[in-house]
Amino acid sequence: MKFRQIVALFAASAICAPLLQADEGMWLFNNPPVKLLQEKYHFQATPAWLEHVQKSSVRFNSGGSGSFVSADGLVMTNHHVGADCLAKISTKEKDYVAKGFEAKSAAEEPKCVDLELNVLMSIEDVTARVNGAIQPGMEPAAAESTRRAEINNIEKESRDKTGLRSDVVPLYNGGQYHIYYYKRYTDVRLVFAPQKAIAFFGGDPDNFEYPRYDLDICFFRVYENDKPVHADNYLKWSATGASEGDLIFVSGHPGRTERLDTVAHLRYLRDYAVPGTLNLLRRREVVLQNFSDRSVENARRAERALFGIKNSRKAYLGMLGGLQDPAIISRKMQDEQELRDLVNRDAKLKQAYGDAWDDISATLKASIKIRDEYNLFGPARRGQAFNSDLFDIALRLVRLAQESAKPNSERLREYSEAGLDSLKLQLFSDAPIYEDLEILQLADSLGMMTEVLGGDNAIVQSVLAGKSPRDRAAEMVHGSGLKDVAVRKRLADGGAAAINESKDPMIQLARLIDPESRRIRQTFEQQVDEPQRQAYGKIANAKFAIFGSSLYPDATFTLRLAFGEAKGFTEAGQKISWDTTLGGTYEHAAEHGNKDPFELPKIWNERKARLKLSTPFNFVSTADIIGGNSGSPVINRDGELVGIIFDGNIESLVLDYIYTDQLSRAVAVHSAGILEALRKVYSADRLVTELTGKK
Amino acid sequence: MKFRQIVALFAASAICAPLLQADEGMWLFNNPPVKLLQEKYHFQATPAWLEHVQKSSVRFNSGGSGSFVSADGLVMTNHHVGADCLAKISTKEKDYVAKGFEAKSAAEEPKCVDLELNVLMSIEDVTARVNGAIQPGMEPAAAESTRRAEINNIEKESRDKTGLRSDVVPLYNGGQYHIYYYKRYTDVRLVFAPQKAIAFFGGDPDNFEYPRYDLDICFFRVYENDKPVHADNYLKWSATGASEGDLIFVSGHPGRTERLDTVAHLRYLRDYAVPGTLNLLRRREVVLQNFSDRSVENARRAERALFGIKNSRKAYLGMLGGLQDPAIISRKMQDEQELRDLVNRDAKLKQAYGDAWDDISATLKASIKIRDEYNLFGPARRGQAFNSDLFDIALRLVRLAQESAKPNSERLREYSEAGLDSLKLQLFSDAPIYEDLEILQLADSLGMMTEVLGGDNAIVQSVLAGKSPRDRAAEMVHGSGLKDVAVRKRLADGGAAAINESKDPMIQLARLIDPESRRIRQTFEQQVDEPQRQAYGKIANAKFAIFGSSLYPDATFTLRLAFGEAKGFTEAGQKISWDTTLGGTYEHAAEHGNKDPFELPKIWNERKARLKLSTPFNFVSTADIIGGNSGSPVINRDGELVGIIFDGNIESLVLDYIYTDQLSRAVAVHSAGILEALRKVYSADRLVTELTGKK
Repeated sequence: MKFRQIVALFAASAICAPLLQADEGMWLFNNPPVKLLQEKYHFQATPAWLEHVQKSSVRFNSGGSGSFVSADGLVMTNHHVGADCLAKISTKEKDYVAKGFEAKSAAEEPKCVDLELNVLMSIEDVTARVNGAIQPGMEPAAAESTRRAEINNIEKESRDKTGLRSDVVPLYNGGQYHIYYYKRYTDVRLVFAPQKAIAFFGGDPDNFEYPRYDLDICFFRVYENDKPVHADNYLKWSATGASEGDLIFVSGHPGRTERLDTVAHLRYLRDYAVPGTLNLLRRREVVLQNFSDRSVENARRAERALFGIKNSRKAYLGMLGGLQDPAIISRKMQDEQELRDLVNRDAKLKQAYGDAWDDISATLKASIKIRDEYNLFGPARRGQAFNSDLFDIALRLVRLAQESAKPNSERLREYSEAGLDSLKLQLFSDAPIYEDLEILQLADSLGMMTEVLGGDNAIVQSVLAGKSPRDRAAEMVHGSGLKDVAVRKRLADGGAAAINESKDPMIQLARLIDPESRRIRQTFEQQVDEPQRQAYGKIANAKFAIFGSSLYPDATFTLRLAFGEAKGFTEAGQKISWDTTLGGTYEHAAEHGNKDPFELPKIWNERKARLKLSTPFNFVSTADIIGGNSGSPVINRDGELVGIIFDGNIESLVLDYIYTDQLSRAVAVHSAGILEALRKVYSADRLVTELTGKK
Repeated sequence: MKFRQIVALFAASAICAPLLQADEGMWLFNNPPVKLLQEKYHFQATPAWLEHVQKSSVRFNSGGSGSFVSADGLVMTNHHVGADCLAKISTKEKDYVAKGFEAKSAAEEPKCVDLELNVLMSIEDVTARVNGAIQPGMEPAAAESTRRAEINNIEKESRDKTGLRSDVVPLYNGGQYHIYYYKRYTDVRLVFAPQKAIAFFGGDPDNFEYPRYDLDICFFRVYENDKPVHADNYLKWSATGASEGDLIFVSGHPGRTERLDTVAHLRYLRDYAVPGTLNLLRRREVVLQNFSDRSVENARRAERALFGIKNSRKAYLGMLGGLQDPAIISRKMQDEQELRDLVNRDAKLKQAYGDAWDDISATLKASIKIRDEYNLFGPARRGQAFNSDLFDIALRLVRLAQESAKPNSERLREYSEAGLDSLKLQLFSDAPIYEDLEILQLADSLGMMTEVLGGDNAIVQSVLAGKSPRDRAAEMVHGSGLKDVAVRKRLADGGAAAINESKDPMIQLARLIDPESRRIRQTFEQQVDEPQRQAYGKIANAKFAIFGSSLYPDATFTLRLAFGEAKGFTEAGQKISWDTTLGGTYEHAAEHGNKDPFELPKIWNERKARLKLSTPFNFVSTADIIGGNSGSPVINRDGELVGIIFDGNIESLVLDYIYTDQLSRAVAVHSAGILEALRKVYSADRLVTELTGKK
């Protein structure tokens, strides 16, 4: 009885006990919920089924998920995931995002800029090797560098041995380390994209809402040696798609959850981290919105950045709403107390893990003190003080020169040998850089730095060099040669000597700020990251000891399997159907006066009569997803594709901290609706034939 | 030579020496720049001319300026000033803001809700009486309450004696106190308003920009005893209007400047106050923009608030840009050092005023510590924690009951006898209150309070009462009866007993927060306001002693006279003309694809052919203005109306701290352009006849 009671109490925690009744979990493919699926849904997740799903799944390294949907390397993802590529190959004259695109033949498929796709081939547990390198009682500084060296070495060995991209991933917040082997694709070409007006129909107002009516899809083809790759594993298209009550699976790459966080950590997020992030997002939203409002071309240039910011702002607002809800915090407190009581009741557990919670609280206090400076200057990529692609390139060039000169084991993680291919793909990208947007964003971020540290601060004064943020930003952007990829390559090839001699103002700024950036990053790693990793590792191990090994870790932008039911919900007494229809789209547009962002593309109005309006368009399920799952295939028992995840409703945003299936739902485009639109609106015969195998 | 040199150095300060060459100054009508005008422009500002201009000028108590333009009480102001009234009398079905309005007869003139206009009748210096009440060596707390009592008494005596609204105004940041006697009008009716699309053509993107093409005007009529008032003083309409190079005057109510501020104070504004205000504005902008984007009716409901926020955001950004410009701070430092050197060189001045600068620095340190709490709870009107009209009403009802029971001299300033009429006009206003908007804004501000103080803070917890900010806001707004003016009146009539018995959740919240609000307000007054007032009084007196009395004080939303030249400028090598034309409006619309906010009202396109396209539409001048001057008449030597101020360019926003006429310009609508539009686009014959005296 005791065990069952504990199970009930933990029904909503991150690392959860095996007999859950809820459709909870972002499960590892090397630790799948086989028993749970058998018991709740009488579904047999065989190794073959799992391997098929795993190898059909695709990670978009730009931040998203997708899947193979034909043997000829055709990949489907969301429009809002693919739009990163669409925007980078667009110009004022040819706007792929707004206008959409269809390749009528292979020859018409344009190549994406700097897009990298990863397909997970296998996973290996390297916890023992990573943790074995750390001596008991090591200072955080030594532990951090020892662990980093070990991980850098493992990755390099693995890549040298297999030729595959090899990422060591900390799981269970540091409780385990697994190595992920990926097949890496960088020749990715655009096959089909609808207009943004239907892909993101309803825009920001409808984002994170349901009912919904979005054709949020996009098709790419993966090439190798200038030929489409043959995909051994791909998902067959289900023309009927999901039905209400169906068991469905989602295989994708949830980015980050915080379900394992202690209550103190959640309070820190509530009172410091999330409000800080929201302030930053809002200021950037206002800056970019104003820029966009000035002209159509401005809007096109800022579109991707502005979408990302609005999307994040709405997501973080939802998360903060959850954290500010006393009911959620008190449920978390209860869970935590129960676990701590169980640990403290067992002398061995208490000795090994009992002080982990206090250790984490100590790291939070440290973080409060240094977080402003860290956020401005410390992150591996551009700090908040320098919101500029050119600066980001400059800093990476400066560090590439420094780090390349060191042995692999001593390098910063992001310059280790195993990751250099991906780094260089980004660094030498042909993606357009717009000077007006660069100046605007850099000026605002320099202004923010001045606000946070004060105008009399020494670093502020040396960065601004006697000028106002706007004048300084303009001077640096206009003066930099880094817009030219050839210049970047010359600097990278020239190593430290070329960097030190460079008169480029962005390189000079990066050199100026680099020591400060490294200092604050090291402080943060030693006072926050490393002790947190160790303490969370203890908590994870305590849970393993108490609940056994059938637990899933917090999300890490690695492949996970979720499951659930296609199922509506009841909100404020009103029943919300599990699906919407193509016909509902037109009604929704009319209710909003057919005005942007509720204005349908012309072709959708012209071809309305062709459509079977009762076809399901979007639908919801109880699957456990979060940001990063965008583009994940929704799969039925037979391993067929029945839909594609593109959003969660507002209520699903608390899934960051806690699973609930009361109101939270994952939102997907239905496979039948996609097919109907491709056939009747777009007459995309080549694509339809490839998906269905029928003419 | 020494004196001249000092003069040159102070050419840009707030309290400036008499021989200025620049068109600087927001001059008091009882201390006008007669000599300066004579010397620079050979213009004789006679007492009769000044009295005529003064009594033709009108203050919009909602925040803006205007002027009488006919003997029958016709008043012109900006559309964006009058829009407060327009919005309050609009409904979903009849939208005066978007659609515009023209009364074809007196009977068709609709009455505004809660609009109060003030006309300045006379000014009297009461410095000796106010300062005479303060004993040397009094503690700040005693000095503050003594001064407050004296001012409350003076105002009551003056009102009882004259029947006029009587405001004691601290000038020269506390160096002098003058009493302003106003004729007060509260029956104000709408005569004419253009569509917002032309009044605010170019919207937020064009706001604070020039060249410009806005018909930012609105006409009201002032009534007494249900009859139009006869205006003895009104401005005759100049059909030709201003020409390039003309001397022009601006008579209006600049709201606030900070030119007297010490450098330490400017740094405080730069690093704390202005960034804090901008963060608040941005979060409110994002909240309201999202609400507006959801439907046309939402947009209508939020329109005024959103305009105000965007307008402020752009203004504060411009001000912050000035403060973050090292050139401006260093010029201010040089000025300050010169003044301090002059004070320190004279033993008597040094003894009397020498420590004022350090005293101010001490108040800034105190302010940094308590400002978050003060901003959330302390201001006289709603604090930032409670962004709700219903809460604002509740707090004023609670305090009205408390303060009315005290002798007049002991009351909080805003509940003193002399101000009660204006207070009650607001409190019992029929202006619509929208529940959805109330919940949205209150939830966001409760969320902000939670972010600033932390979710575990005791006040936060008692305000939220165990609910999330959104749930708590919804519960209070839905549960409050204060939407009903009759309920408010009953509570006001019932005094303390009715308030204490009330179960209204907003009244209960106001009662809960009132003691904390008073506590932090008192702390702020004693540690910041009062010592600042005393120290700035010393600095002002030091300047009087050194430079004599021909100085103008910082702006205080009281009537001021500014002057300048109608004159273009050169920006980045490009000459910008002093005026724009009606024809340019159509070109500007076309350049922006005729898309909102660059989409002209239909009637403007239909009647384009009727217009003389070369007619001046907007124009700029060097007059010294700031926010609050909106709607101020632009007047020629003959006392005729040649235009109406509606904006300043981006470069004028530094006028908050420092006058410059290099790029800063005041932007006005030209009287000829107005007349042409009224005649040809609107066929507003009744209005045109009244303005011109011709059929």
